[in-house]
Amino acid sequence: MNITKTVRFVIAQKNQNSVVEKIVSLAKRRGFVFQSSEIYGGLNGCWDYGPLGVELLKNIKEEWWKSMTYREDVEGLDASILMHPRVWEASGHVENFTDPMIDCKQCKARFRVDTLGDAINEKKKKKFIEALSERLSGEKAEIFNRIKELHPDINEQFERVLETKGIAFDMLSEVNCPNCGTQGQFTEPRSFNLMFKTFIGSVESQDSVVYLRPETAQGIFVNFLNVQGASRQKLPFGIAQIGKAFRNEINTKNFLFRTREFEQMEMQYFVNPKDDKKYYDEWKERRINWFKSLGMTADKLRFHDHPEDKLAHYAKEATDIEYEFPFGWGEIEGVHNRTDFDLSRHQEYSGKSQQYFDDMTKEKFIPYIIETSAGASRSFMAFLIDAYIEEEVNGEQRVVLKFHPKLAPIKAAIFPLVNKDGMPEVARKIETELRPHMKVFFDDKGAVGRRYRRQDEAGTPYCVTVDTQTLEDNTVTVRERDSMAQERVKIEDLLVYFLQKLK
Amino acid sequence: MNITKTVRFVIAQKNQNSVVEKIVSLAKRRGFVFQSSEIYGGLNGCWDYGPLGVELLKNIKEEWWKSMTYREDVEGLDASILMHPRVWEASGHVENFTDPMIDCKQCKARFRVDTLGDAINEKKKKKFIEALSERLSGEKAEIFNRIKELHPDINEQFERVLETKGIAFDMLSEVNCPNCGTQGQFTEPRSFNLMFKTFIGSVESQDSVVYLRPETAQGIFVNFLNVQGASRQKLPFGIAQIGKAFRNEINTKNFLFRTREFEQMEMQYFVNPKDDKKYYDEWKERRINWFKSLGMTADKLRFHDHPEDKLAHYAKEATDIEYEFPFGWGEIEGVHNRTDFDLSRHQEYSGKSQQYFDDMTKEKFIPYIIETSAGASRSFMAFLIDAYIEEEVNGEQRVVLKFHPKLAPIKAAIFPLVNKDGMPEVARKIETELRPHMKVFFDDKGAVGRRYRRQDEAGTPYCVTVDTQTLEDNTVTVRERDSMAQERVKIEDLLVYFLQKLK
Repeated sequence: MNITKTVRFVIAQKNQNSVVEKIVSLAKRRGFVFQSSEIYGGLNGCWDYGPLGVELLKNIKEEWWKSMTYREDVEGLDASILMHPRVWEASGHVENFTDPMIDCKQCKARFRVDTLGDAINEKKKKKFIEALSERLSGEKAEIFNRIKELHPDINEQFERVLETKGIAFDMLSEVNCPNCGTQGQFTEPRSFNLMFKTFIGSVESQDSVVYLRPETAQGIFVNFLNVQGASRQKLPFGIAQIGKAFRNEINTKNFLFRTREFEQMEMQYFVNPKDDKKYYDEWKERRINWFKSLGMTADKLRFHDHPEDKLAHYAKEATDIEYEFPFGWGEIEGVHNRTDFDLSRHQEYSGKSQQYFDDMTKEKFIPYIIETSAGASRSFMAFLIDAYIEEEVNGEQRVVLKFHPKLAPIKAAIFPLVNKDGMPEVARKIETELRPHMKVFFDDKGAVGRRYRRQDEAGTPYCVTVDTQTLEDNTVTVRERDSMAQERVKIEDLLVYFLQKLK
Repeated sequence: MNITKTVRFVIAQKNQNSVVEKIVSLAKRRGFVFQSSEIYGGLNGCWDYGPLGVELLKNIKEEWWKSMTYREDVEGLDASILMHPRVWEASGHVENFTDPMIDCKQCKARFRVDTLGDAINEKKKKKFIEALSERLSGEKAEIFNRIKELHPDINEQFERVLETKGIAFDMLSEVNCPNCGTQGQFTEPRSFNLMFKTFIGSVESQDSVVYLRPETAQGIFVNFLNVQGASRQKLPFGIAQIGKAFRNEINTKNFLFRTREFEQMEMQYFVNPKDDKKYYDEWKERRINWFKSLGMTADKLRFHDHPEDKLAHYAKEATDIEYEFPFGWGEIEGVHNRTDFDLSRHQEYSGKSQQYFDDMTKEKFIPYIIETSAGASRSFMAFLIDAYIEEEVNGEQRVVLKFHPKLAPIKAAIFPLVNKDGMPEVARKIETELRPHMKVFFDDKGAVGRRYRRQDEAGTPYCVTVDTQTLEDNTVTVRERDSMAQERVKIEDLLVYFLQKLK
């Protein structure tokens, strides 16, 4: 079989919607990703992983976990999602992880300032913008004009305008409350936290507020000395954790890229401050190589180093590992030198020393932290998009997910060529033998070509066909997904054959 | 070496505290379980899994996942924690998953009625109960006297008394508000939901309330047709899911047994209603055997079938798989025949048909669901407690965690007998060879006997010692944890030796 023409997945701004749409549609149809609570119209920013998706996600997490914790210098952890609220005061999230909010004085409903734009229809918006332009004067008019210059399509930029607090308040006199309809009766903007809050215990008051963690990192930081003590690790060493985090994003977008509920894979590496540069550089390289080692296209991966004046308050050095999505380059992992910021803050807020005692040098100090923080959900999306290929084979189109065999949800599919002559029985025997060792799939429905295509779309690297020759010489055809090359393998050698291929 | 005396972990009501305390202490010291946010005083009902704990938990989940999804008739799923709020109306949780609550009219603080007892000290309680007895008359006095009869120690039963709504309200006139101290200014009790609620989006109002799921099951039910369509499964088939769930329990207790954040392993099996009994019985047996197959003591496991008049509103038949904890028998898994209750409700609330079409019989119907719902956190605790053994060996006590090798956090520890003569180098070589295949641990500190004890306490099934003989004939000592038997194995055979043992 020849691949007569390969149409590589084209990254172009104008095609971004159709490409992502195709993948979202495939993801739903084949059971990778469903909208959360779909039968109720979905829940914005939340997604469910279906039968194939959960395996892909599990495999990504398992490879990450092995690469991290099958090391002498990294320990695992699984901290709870609900944490003591002081954690988020120490981390700075209570104070800084915010957006401006206003209340309607009439009906007491609360809105994020930058979303009030949604409350007005296009016609009203235009009229409102015009009215605003006329009314604005002095400094505010200047800001507004500057924004207009930068963003000629002012309607699209309406939300951004509102984000500029000073202007927003002026504008609000023109806006009707989306809840009760009263015009312009809003309080001054106040800060709104992006953390989901809930109440713990029987009292529902400010004192019982706890948050869904907006990042998994803090669970590692507050356990630094517990883990170090129990594992008797010495610097440098790391703590690895995979878990869910939550952010009440208003602008969820791009499928799994910006969601409200997501999963992180974080490893925080504790080092002597004098070695920070060395380990920062080491982990940077190691992490980008991890994506490549699992088959992600190398030229779609890059570092985006943060310029010094754009660094987060806790960071001395920082880089994003970016993947080129159909909608542009996007971060899939951050590597940061967080210095002693986090442990110092927890020492201050908890009153518990977070110092490490080096029994060689007899020094006591707060370690620096080199953070590697990958999105499991974003990695999932990057691996899925990167694997997606449309090809023309002998005049017919096929869609293939060229997953690395380690990541593929199903490792091997087993087909009896026809559903008679003892072939199904032999195929079932093979299935039974392989099943305890890997995820396999049995399919006896339809033409073999069609069954191949179905497995191509699921990303299954190997298909095993039991045919007439099998009944004569106990060999089967093994067909490899990408090359479509076929070879005959003895049934008795199949398990070892696959275990070798999947290593 | 002889085991001269084995003191099996004694289950006795009076020892329960000390036994659980021992295990909690071991769990912290060795890095199985830490209190969440411990440096801030902890967060009640939340726990973090440390380096050994996360591996044990992972291994339990992995064995469960394999036993469930390495089957042709079960598909995996990973649904989001935040779901559309209508899900919980359909499931009955919004209406029924409640406790009575009251507000203090003075300071507006809110309390669960059954916890107000905590606000009064013992002396006051007694006086209050006496005063109450005198004042009560008619029906209320009767109820109260009946409760006193049933529970002679009235102080202990104080909370129960308060739970009886009618009486509670009377009593409240005697209680001071735990927040502001005002006496008896409470509203009528209203129902309080045990689901954690939060607000999604920019508006904080009743319309934006979403809940942290109190069970993972509903994520499966609402995805029934999505999964069935994508996987082309036919009845009977199941959907398996592992994930976190949250309940705002007031009385968290018994370490990991009743917590606010916990993990579930659920498989919902969809069947033709006429086959419900058959599959209910099958899964019941299969599930209890799963615990036994992983080494849980058979005579500490039992079924507790729910009598017909105690069945939950959705269940036709139900059993708990119980483990005998130090504090008594406790549920670690539930197997339920949920009938068509859940899918019927979701059909009603979503307006989307949840019927299955049987293309053999041309019938259309709502399947029945056989639920197997195991607590991952509770299973963790049961496996941990069941593995805990104190033994006297040659006059010395040893603590061993006799985990099944598949569950053991560390599979093999590697020791150079002394830290010289080339032994560390050989030991490191062995470590390097084994590490990609399993979790191993290298230890060159202290006497070998001490190193063995440390691994016994961690539950490591095999210790490999590199000694003088190793340097002569390339063999090592492999010591088995439970029998403490030692045998010599060639270095080159070690990997296969272990892979065989761990199968």
